[in-house]
Amino acid sequence: MQDALHHLRFDSNGLIPAIVQDAETKEVLMLAYMNSRSLRLTVEKGETYFWSRSRGELWHKGETSGNLQKVVEINVDCDADTLLILVQPMGPACHTGQRTCFYRALEEKSL
Amino acid sequence: MQDALHHLRFDSNGLIPAIVQDAETKEVLMLAYMNSRSLRLTVEKGETYFWSRSRGELWHKGETSGNLQKVVEINVDCDADTLLILVQPMGPACHTGQRTCFYRALEEKSL
Repeated sequence: MQDALHHLRFDSNGLIPAIVQDAETKEVLMLAYMNSRSLRLTVEKGETYFWSRSRGELWHKGETSGNLQKVVEINVDCDADTLLILVQPMGPACHTGQRTCFYRALEEKSL
Repeated sequence: MQDALHHLRFDSNGLIPAIVQDAETKEVLMLAYMNSRSLRLTVEKGETYFWSRSRGELWHKGETSGNLQKVVEINVDCDADTLLILVQPMGPACHTGQRTCFYRALEEKSL
């Protein structure tokens, strides 16, 4: 694991984007960012932890809402600068209550 | 469309991450970045265009390999800073010849 982390390409802010996908339905739920600490916690605890860029703090997904994401599998892309995390979600991924954060089409007026 | 673009949140480099997913199999194929020009081309042409951060140039996916990605649907997330693009791929997404760029587990020695 230490080895694996060592080869990941974190950006200049020490972050790597993580795509979160429902392991069963294959629905893409969200994109969030991890630093090495949140990735280690994700692997160790088997639940997703991110780095909140807006709040500038570690973020345990679902800690307050109960909508945890249980980790099923973690994949890395060919150039090792993006993660794909397959999860079993305990509830909606989106703070709006939607199952996925990608609930709007680009052309919709709601934009 | 102009309206939609106006509300998207591009980062300080003028880029927005785009998750590319196979519309039929739901497999996540890759993550790449778009600037407003590549997004406009993607919508107009119905094929994916990105901004290559490593080469610093517009990148029409599959232009040389033939592995174009036909756009089926474009979604945007709740805070309008990530795109999810459902495509019909004309061939492998990855330059390694793999169908998806996420073909490795994090723990694998290949990292």
